[in-house]
Amino acid sequence: MTGECVFCRIISHDAAGRIVYEDGLTVAFVDRRQVTPGHTLVVPRRHVRDIFELDGATGAALMLTTVRIAAAVRDAFGCEGISTWQQNGASAGQEVFHMHVHVMPRHAGDGLLRIYAAPPSMPDGEELDAMARSIRAAL
Amino acid sequence: MTGECVFCRIISHDAAGRIVYEDGLTVAFVDRRQVTPGHTLVVPRRHVRDIFELDGATGAALMLTTVRIAAAVRDAFGCEGISTWQQNGASAGQEVFHMHVHVMPRHAGDGLLRIYAAPPSMPDGEELDAMARSIRAAL
Repeated sequence: MTGECVFCRIISHDAAGRIVYEDGLTVAFVDRRQVTPGHTLVVPRRHVRDIFELDGATGAALMLTTVRIAAAVRDAFGCEGISTWQQNGASAGQEVFHMHVHVMPRHAGDGLLRIYAAPPSMPDGEELDAMARSIRAAL
Repeated sequence: MTGECVFCRIISHDAAGRIVYEDGLTVAFVDRRQVTPGHTLVVPRRHVRDIFELDGATGAALMLTTVRIAAAVRDAFGCEGISTWQQNGASAGQEVFHMHVHVMPRHAGDGLLRIYAAPPSMPDGEELDAMARSIRAAL
């Protein structure tokens, strides 16, 4: 809990928030900024800055709540699909530094956020092998 | 496992894939289509179509692997941030119907996928309340 964190204030019911679900480790509430109607955020109850600070139990709970919220949002808003995303670090577009998963209804042709905003590169096999080696070495 | 699923074929080592991590429930491999260098996918080993088919144990494992891969990709590629996202349904942009989490390195000014591709709407309190009620009713 930090006094200046808007999500901590929603979680503790100090700020107006539309909480739709809460348990011991996670809370879900309607995002004030609706990219598509039904846009909901799932957050750890504890003030976790980003994915790099996430412990296993909280991570597991966060995923279970995300799965539940995804199904409920789909049912409540009659959407065909759901996108989830989650940004870590200012350079990734994170604006509130309390980890959050966006659960967003998707409809055919909504034009939102195709995965490949720009054409992806298609590295050759050797380049891909080198990437894989560097990730394995960092694990 | 389905014979036509390209991710099932990578998981079973039948297709060329750059697996960087695997355990009993999850597998991570370098994406052939690199949006930013280091772009990696985390998938359930079992053929799960999307988040709506995800069971709790697999979901928890998927999140734990995503956390590990996010840290490893950050360390291996020296990026400042990480975005994760995950699409469910063709209308959401899902192309391979084996659930997958994208783990993508982010750098300041890379211009990739801001959360708000279009200005989000700012519904008033009553509208937000109504949304929250409909999601709670669907849970």
